[in-house]
Amino acid sequence: MDRLSVKDMAIRARSASKYLAGAGQEAKNRVLELMAESLLERANDVLEANGRDVEKATLAGLPSAMLKRLTVTQAKLESMANGIRKVAALPDPVGKVLESWERPNGLKIQKVSVPFGVIGIIYESRPDVTADATALCLKSGNAVILRGGTESIESNLAIVGALGAALAKAGAPVDCVQYLVDPDRSAVKEMLHLSGYIDLLIPRGGANLIKTVVQDSTVPVIETGTGNCHVYVHEKADLSMALDIAINAKCSNPAVCNAMETLLVDRAVARDFLPGLVSSLKERGVEVRGCSETRAIVPDVQPATEDDWATEYLDLTLAVKVVGGLDEALDHISKYGTMHSEAIVTTDEAAAARFRSSVDAACVYVNASTRFTDGFEFGFGAEIGISTQKLHARGPMGLRELNTYKYVVTGNGQIR
Amino acid sequence: MDRLSVKDMAIRARSASKYLAGAGQEAKNRVLELMAESLLERANDVLEANGRDVEKATLAGLPSAMLKRLTVTQAKLESMANGIRKVAALPDPVGKVLESWERPNGLKIQKVSVPFGVIGIIYESRPDVTADATALCLKSGNAVILRGGTESIESNLAIVGALGAALAKAGAPVDCVQYLVDPDRSAVKEMLHLSGYIDLLIPRGGANLIKTVVQDSTVPVIETGTGNCHVYVHEKADLSMALDIAINAKCSNPAVCNAMETLLVDRAVARDFLPGLVSSLKERGVEVRGCSETRAIVPDVQPATEDDWATEYLDLTLAVKVVGGLDEALDHISKYGTMHSEAIVTTDEAAAARFRSSVDAACVYVNASTRFTDGFEFGFGAEIGISTQKLHARGPMGLRELNTYKYVVTGNGQIR
Repeated sequence: MDRLSVKDMAIRARSASKYLAGAGQEAKNRVLELMAESLLERANDVLEANGRDVEKATLAGLPSAMLKRLTVTQAKLESMANGIRKVAALPDPVGKVLESWERPNGLKIQKVSVPFGVIGIIYESRPDVTADATALCLKSGNAVILRGGTESIESNLAIVGALGAALAKAGAPVDCVQYLVDPDRSAVKEMLHLSGYIDLLIPRGGANLIKTVVQDSTVPVIETGTGNCHVYVHEKADLSMALDIAINAKCSNPAVCNAMETLLVDRAVARDFLPGLVSSLKERGVEVRGCSETRAIVPDVQPATEDDWATEYLDLTLAVKVVGGLDEALDHISKYGTMHSEAIVTTDEAAAARFRSSVDAACVYVNASTRFTDGFEFGFGAEIGISTQKLHARGPMGLRELNTYKYVVTGNGQIR
Repeated sequence: MDRLSVKDMAIRARSASKYLAGAGQEAKNRVLELMAESLLERANDVLEANGRDVEKATLAGLPSAMLKRLTVTQAKLESMANGIRKVAALPDPVGKVLESWERPNGLKIQKVSVPFGVIGIIYESRPDVTADATALCLKSGNAVILRGGTESIESNLAIVGALGAALAKAGAPVDCVQYLVDPDRSAVKEMLHLSGYIDLLIPRGGANLIKTVVQDSTVPVIETGTGNCHVYVHEKADLSMALDIAINAKCSNPAVCNAMETLLVDRAVARDFLPGLVSSLKERGVEVRGCSETRAIVPDVQPATEDDWATEYLDLTLAVKVVGGLDEALDHISKYGTMHSEAIVTTDEAAAARFRSSVDAACVYVNASTRFTDGFEFGFGAEIGISTQKLHARGPMGLRELNTYKYVVTGNGQIR
């Protein structure tokens, strides 16, 4: 072994987390400020390391979208440093008295926000996540163990080196941030089984990564990100609003989890709505796949198969289905949705109310684009991910969601 | 196959959960009232079925503590029915607007409490849990799949039969409550892997049951119950208060998770405190195991080994350790505690403050017994379990903790 075991890393992280849990807002913000500085001071190291990663990945034939996410430029580095400073500027989520009450026996009970302790973040080859996730974990009082994609190893080590130097300069434990070097994926498997040592795992990335973590992990996991999102155009929709929302939900950033993947439209308005929609989408390079009714109205559309309803394209592709009304739309969403973000466009308050209460998703929209499911758009000032599970946090997760709570009970000798 | 697969049960539960999610307080309370009635009407069935279970378990040599928990008497049945009625009388946790705000672009965001959907409860051979867990799940808008210990199978089926009859009478889906018959434990294994079908699993019972569920499950789990709880008597403690708290924490119900298992006492007061404590404990039948310093002060005490510090006795046994002060006490609790309930007895506010902030446990007590970690004692009016993990809920879990939330976002055409 030429390096620490994951368990030993977790033990060091636990120890560092005690410093962070007790560190006030000022101490944590000073660390974050120094981290931003250190990243810029070491820009050359990081850019050179990233150059080596990119060169290797290019030779290995990594797809261009992934190469783009792997590449760190001076501008991206500055944006990473700014991101850290923005996190520093956010309010400290730790130590808030969430509730307090007194029992008839005189016991005073307070419910207080506290950090989880040690958080593991497993992500793809995106070096910007290294800085971003670190800032969010530290600000929320948690030590973090990072494990990024193998293609980004040199970049990540250079970034974590810069972040660690800032911790040392601030006199804080360097083990607040550790990076798991794991070329053969054996250590990450070990990480998934360190319950009692790691308090929370957050996988960020594609569906396969998340599935693997959820299936193998005995550490509590927050699932993030898979979004098979729908926009449903109700028969009483403002069709011009519906068009704007549909174009925005599909085209403004098709690669992200809150983009629309299937559009549902009521039969009553399909003939009025679909031709204009499909032509606008095609102008924007979107491939449309439709049900047979859609194709009867707009012949120039590929046929959709069962698979299309279940697919998160993350691309300029859209499935379109004509439905008989709200019930059929709700059934379709219930069957194929991933409980991420679902929208109805309607002027009918009764339909809106039923959609709101019946759709089981993290974010349910009436007359707005699904693209707003985002920590910044929600006003959280940050985002560690978008939870698609129901335990602890749902939807956009900011600093607050990186805290748990404890009960502090004060008495004067009460016994039971 | 002579019965439904667990997956098919979960699909039925999902469908029933939609009824429950939309059912108002009145409809749910009527179901609960009918359940209480039905349980009493079918008292003979339940008692006879339980008689068969108890007979079989007695022949099989089940330990007497377990036999006691398995046995249903007329009085216990009435207490189960009353328990259901008490749950009916609690406020409905569903549909509360937890927060709401408006974004600069006019989007209105509401965070609303909603049921999880389908909850699986895996528990030991305690038929009263069958009624209790059902009432809590239904009141919180969740369908439930129950799987109790094999010794209680006939009792549980009789109880679930009575509960199902009440659902039918109320015109509600009978699949709101289902019981998993699983003599060879293959179905429960399947249940642990039904992520996407079951939203939450709560294991209730012994450490082994919980460990198995946590290790095997891909469905989100809330760990409950293991409590290696400490009372720490600080050098500035009111020693008479400390004695009362220690006796209460150990003796009032040693078989439960919030009972004290190890007492820590500062060296400065050990000589004053321990002789009286040990003699009071011995009067109550408690076996005391002490560190060498404890035995130097009170010779008539068994030696404690390393194992004792880590053991949840759940019995009239107590480990006692003399410590050099707050730091050593905090280290001991950090090393051996299970993050359940930890208490300090002190008149020193600085020591209390440090204990409160440094101890990582669901419930941290100052000058009160650990035995208050309980949904009823906290004023929740109910308890499905005590969480010892950090995700979603910590400490006593009542109706509110059986809900998650969703964001409801209302716009007038906002796009991003």
